[in-house]
Amino acid sequence: MKYEGRVTLPTQKNFLKETKELIKRWGADAVRDSDGTELDKSILELDSKIYRKYFVARGHNDFIKNHPEEMQQLYLMSKYHTATSTSLTIKVMEGYYEEQLKPDFIHDPKKWWEVIDRTTGEVVNVDKWSVDEEDKTVTIEETAPFHEYTVSFLAYMTWDPTHMYNHITNDWGDEPYDIPFDVRQPNSQEYMKDYLRKWLKENPETDVVRFTTFFYHFTLVFNDLGKEKFVDWFGYGTSVSVAALEAFEKEKGYALRPEDLVDQGYYNTAFRVPTEAYLDYIDFIQQFVTQQAKELVDIVHEAGKEAMMFLGDNWIGTEPYGKYFENIGMDAVVGSVGDGVTSRMISDIPHIKYSEGRFLPYFFPDTFHEDNNPVVEANERWLGARRANMRKPLDRIGYGGYLDLAYDFPEFVDYTEKVTNEFRDIISHIDESKPWSKLKVAIINPWGKLRSWQNFMVAHALWYKQIYSYQGILESLSGMPVEVEFLSFDDLKEDGIADDISVLINAGDAGTAFSGGDHWKDPELVSVIREWVYNGGGFIGIGEPSAVQHQGKYFQLSDILGVDKELGFSLSTNKYFEDLTEDHFINQNRTEFDFGESVHNIYSTNEDTTILEYSNNEIHLATSTYGEGRSVYIAGLPYSIENTRLLLKSMIYAAGKEDEYHIWHSTNPNCEINVYPETNYYGIINNSMKAQKTEIFDGDGNSKVYHLEPSELLWERIK
Amino acid sequence: MKYEGRVTLPTQKNFLKETKELIKRWGADAVRDSDGTELDKSILELDSKIYRKYFVARGHNDFIKNHPEEMQQLYLMSKYHTATSTSLTIKVMEGYYEEQLKPDFIHDPKKWWEVIDRTTGEVVNVDKWSVDEEDKTVTIEETAPFHEYTVSFLAYMTWDPTHMYNHITNDWGDEPYDIPFDVRQPNSQEYMKDYLRKWLKENPETDVVRFTTFFYHFTLVFNDLGKEKFVDWFGYGTSVSVAALEAFEKEKGYALRPEDLVDQGYYNTAFRVPTEAYLDYIDFIQQFVTQQAKELVDIVHEAGKEAMMFLGDNWIGTEPYGKYFENIGMDAVVGSVGDGVTSRMISDIPHIKYSEGRFLPYFFPDTFHEDNNPVVEANERWLGARRANMRKPLDRIGYGGYLDLAYDFPEFVDYTEKVTNEFRDIISHIDESKPWSKLKVAIINPWGKLRSWQNFMVAHALWYKQIYSYQGILESLSGMPVEVEFLSFDDLKEDGIADDISVLINAGDAGTAFSGGDHWKDPELVSVIREWVYNGGGFIGIGEPSAVQHQGKYFQLSDILGVDKELGFSLSTNKYFEDLTEDHFINQNRTEFDFGESVHNIYSTNEDTTILEYSNNEIHLATSTYGEGRSVYIAGLPYSIENTRLLLKSMIYAAGKEDEYHIWHSTNPNCEINVYPETNYYGIINNSMKAQKTEIFDGDGNSKVYHLEPSELLWERIK
Repeated sequence: MKYEGRVTLPTQKNFLKETKELIKRWGADAVRDSDGTELDKSILELDSKIYRKYFVARGHNDFIKNHPEEMQQLYLMSKYHTATSTSLTIKVMEGYYEEQLKPDFIHDPKKWWEVIDRTTGEVVNVDKWSVDEEDKTVTIEETAPFHEYTVSFLAYMTWDPTHMYNHITNDWGDEPYDIPFDVRQPNSQEYMKDYLRKWLKENPETDVVRFTTFFYHFTLVFNDLGKEKFVDWFGYGTSVSVAALEAFEKEKGYALRPEDLVDQGYYNTAFRVPTEAYLDYIDFIQQFVTQQAKELVDIVHEAGKEAMMFLGDNWIGTEPYGKYFENIGMDAVVGSVGDGVTSRMISDIPHIKYSEGRFLPYFFPDTFHEDNNPVVEANERWLGARRANMRKPLDRIGYGGYLDLAYDFPEFVDYTEKVTNEFRDIISHIDESKPWSKLKVAIINPWGKLRSWQNFMVAHALWYKQIYSYQGILESLSGMPVEVEFLSFDDLKEDGIADDISVLINAGDAGTAFSGGDHWKDPELVSVIREWVYNGGGFIGIGEPSAVQHQGKYFQLSDILGVDKELGFSLSTNKYFEDLTEDHFINQNRTEFDFGESVHNIYSTNEDTTILEYSNNEIHLATSTYGEGRSVYIAGLPYSIENTRLLLKSMIYAAGKEDEYHIWHSTNPNCEINVYPETNYYGIINNSMKAQKTEIFDGDGNSKVYHLEPSELLWERIK
Repeated sequence: MKYEGRVTLPTQKNFLKETKELIKRWGADAVRDSDGTELDKSILELDSKIYRKYFVARGHNDFIKNHPEEMQQLYLMSKYHTATSTSLTIKVMEGYYEEQLKPDFIHDPKKWWEVIDRTTGEVVNVDKWSVDEEDKTVTIEETAPFHEYTVSFLAYMTWDPTHMYNHITNDWGDEPYDIPFDVRQPNSQEYMKDYLRKWLKENPETDVVRFTTFFYHFTLVFNDLGKEKFVDWFGYGTSVSVAALEAFEKEKGYALRPEDLVDQGYYNTAFRVPTEAYLDYIDFIQQFVTQQAKELVDIVHEAGKEAMMFLGDNWIGTEPYGKYFENIGMDAVVGSVGDGVTSRMISDIPHIKYSEGRFLPYFFPDTFHEDNNPVVEANERWLGARRANMRKPLDRIGYGGYLDLAYDFPEFVDYTEKVTNEFRDIISHIDESKPWSKLKVAIINPWGKLRSWQNFMVAHALWYKQIYSYQGILESLSGMPVEVEFLSFDDLKEDGIADDISVLINAGDAGTAFSGGDHWKDPELVSVIREWVYNGGGFIGIGEPSAVQHQGKYFQLSDILGVDKELGFSLSTNKYFEDLTEDHFINQNRTEFDFGESVHNIYSTNEDTTILEYSNNEIHLATSTYGEGRSVYIAGLPYSIENTRLLLKSMIYAAGKEDEYHIWHSTNPNCEINVYPETNYYGIINNSMKAQKTEIFDGDGNSKVYHLEPSELLWERIK
């Protein structure tokens, strides 16, 4: 792919002249339609590549209305209800949106539903309850007074959640609801292929079929007020059906219980330590989905067009870091990019020809109005995404929304011209070569590769109090001169830890999948890590690493970390080690730290732990040694320029590479340097919106002072 | 007992004249000796009651040196050691003080010791390890590489911990170490009684034998530098012996493992949810200790003297709220009083003739020096203790240290004269009657009555970051016009919840005994509470009440509380309820709160929860309804005048008694009122060191404004 173009614009009717102007100024080479908009004929004049959205399993109500039994399904759990006597009636739909969901009474509830005593955790015998289809209730007899009960029930999803969201948000009135259908069912299966073939014939001008997306929407369930009730961007909820459950049993040799999917109402979010059954289910659905998607992509290819997938909406089973994604033969993936992590999440996707990041802000009136300067947000987001692009650039960028809105902000048009040029400039300097790295780091948890760059994510990268102190780790890493891998605990146990890895990071709140939960009771897991660190590896724990109460310890790797968390059980043990070590490599010249929400009650387990920050009677930063290896503990790492430097230094130190710290180094943390030995360039970026002065060290220890303009990117030849 | 006297002074040699003066000014009627000091003959001139300290199981080295096999024992756990190959040698004494402890090689280690793989939790077969008595090591063969191992070993305690502490602190040089002996052994058993009889004969002038204390010291173990390593004021460590373990097996029908006592190195502190085995052990020791103590007290009584017990040091098994304490027939208990809780801990003791609180500060140079005014501390502590004495007065107070030091501070002598008079004044107005209470509250946890007023206590009421936010609950209650009970979970299950109880409080960090840990998975426990609240009871949860992850909930009583804690598992569930209710009965006129360390990530589980404080994206104060009952959630309650009022209002509201709030009420929270219907008095106290104005409502709704001097106590007739 050449270094020009690489930009996709949304189109707009009756805006041809201005569109041409923007295409020229921003160097765009493709146009696209959007959800709810259609391309008009004029675009053929533009000499641009044409993307068209394509819905596989919704937007075909004429079809699905004739086959209502092929609607998509999911498991839902009722509210908790307390029995105040020996009988209890539960309205299963209470709290759910009747226009989105309806209980499945077609398949025998006694076989497919489950009533659970949530006080004991026991399943209530099917003889003890009955269903009233009219009232949508379950009545349980012989209940234990003051126990709580729930009903897990199979439901049909009668409205696609994205269509529903757009419908409600944009007030689409009486436009009919898109009913999602399940391509595992026979008629749907046949229909989806026939329709695609027909559509391809009817849309010859389309160059790229943009699947939005395939079959099963991430779990998004609305409450009785039509507001979001449960949203899990990774949720497999809607891939369930009686047919799927029966096929699962045949393939895996055992049947799933409703509880395997309902999961106490947590529905196996990515924060739950995945059970074996759930991992089996993911595997089962991924195999099916990728095989089905491949058939559609093959049809697109036969028509001489490219297939692009939107990373989101009905993407379940197609996760690009999953082990069957490659089989689809997808040409491209497009997704939304708001910062470094979301950029890397797209640009690192393997097995595709090109990636495209849709940049924020969208050209919508919430940002493009006269009291606001959209350049501010655009600049901020580009600074985040640019760091990531210096490491692994996207192949293309794109924009969304109404072009005329953007056109009315000349400063924004200018700025976007600068960004698109800078983006192409980065690609031309990197030229598909590999940037030089200081070391390789692996993030370890039960998910591993599957959730690459997606750790700690709720919905699609929203801010949550409980996660920002961990999201900073990945955001920092997304633009850092280090190689990043995502390894699962199974990877570690099965393959050991590869020689080229210098540092392992385990981070997260206790009990969550990102920390690891009960896996830390696994002797094989802790032993493989201990041995590796003992022989010289580096281990960084952030938040509550390796945390599970077991055999007198909370952090199971407290022996490596040199710290543990006081839960109250060991208050009687005197804790003498509180002395701070100043001017250590990690905390040099720094006394102020931001650990975000932080973790509390961390103490040093022995006198050999080096405490680097101690306040409010607890440790927030420490380092220790273990055999030949080293560890660093950090209580939390929200994203900031200072914390990016803190994490870099922590990794360098854990890897025992302090001597190499000044190789290709910027003394001012606001500036970063990336080096491309194959193309003989290095690039210095100013990540701040202020002018900065920094001393840059090259690979031979020579240094030079640079002055950078606000947000500047500056290229130099290595020699 | 009359309302004069009631004060005990320490004595000092060559200080007779001044002692007489102080006795007169402070109204003292008793004198005592101290650890390390002896009474001199001149005290006989004083016409005071004479207390003499008495050590039962230490201070008799001539005896124990002839019977070294009767030294006291305890179980210790070695440090954690990691096997880096298939063999591992552990120095069991590493980190322990060799002058205090030595491993017991007399009893077969293969029978009495335990080697544990702490990575798997499995006991290592005795064939796989051997003991080297010379090196004090255990060598384990066939270890799993990178597993951690510990050795639990039986040791002799060769130095009484209190004697050791005083010896080291006061630099007693070559004074021989007091060796504690075990009265369960035959020679010690005989010796302790013979010696007491002899001593009583030799000390005819003694009126009160002050046992300091009986047989087994609370667990206090020193590290290799001679500094405290582990201190548990409630610890049963030193009551262990081979004889005790064998007797236990005979009595209870099963043998204890070392791990039952070592408890992963936590040694069953009061913060650990007690196991059945440990509760059995406590019961077993208490039976033995109380029966032995009774024999000594009987001897004292036969000699025509009183028996007083010091609450501390070798007090294990004699806990005054334990079920066998009554059998001892003790006349009095004396203990240290620094605040309201420690005052109530002593004054509430049942089955004795009188209690005595030793007030702080001690007359030691650390407080009594020219740069310090000891009145400040004395005043502060008296304000705390006075609140408690208004509810349930001590029978006597006393002082400790060097009288001449106090004498040199005339302002302190004046102040103490005021305090001793005020103390007697309180007693005279209460005259053993029961103060009027607004309601009755019960603190519930697995310990119940046994740890009355001792919840959340580490060592002897020291400040710890992890506990002050809970200690405030008891400190507030200690002087509040409410009745306080301590109920165990077993009490609730066996006896239900008595009609006269209005409010239950469950408070503490998750997993600790004070919260309750796994007990909250017990259907019987949660059901009995739910039913009671449903029928109109009040429930207050502070910190992490009813917390254990189970069946989709963290707070098992979240249905009652209306709030739960987000651990990360339910981030995908939208949480809409953040609206604050101002001007509620509980938070009226108040926006600033101090929740101490606080608990984080608390959210409202439903729209019916009334949120009273919301900040930093989390709830810290809320109330909810459950059937006819009500709940209040508080994120933490360090002691303060404001938090005392917050807790009072929370209880009143939970009990549904808002209408009665103004009965006997002080509008200014700095002032409290206590009412004694039987004696026809009420007392108003100013708990602050500033003058206060307050409106006082009487029992009929009439009010009157009072102006109180700093710290003033003011008495009025009810009519």
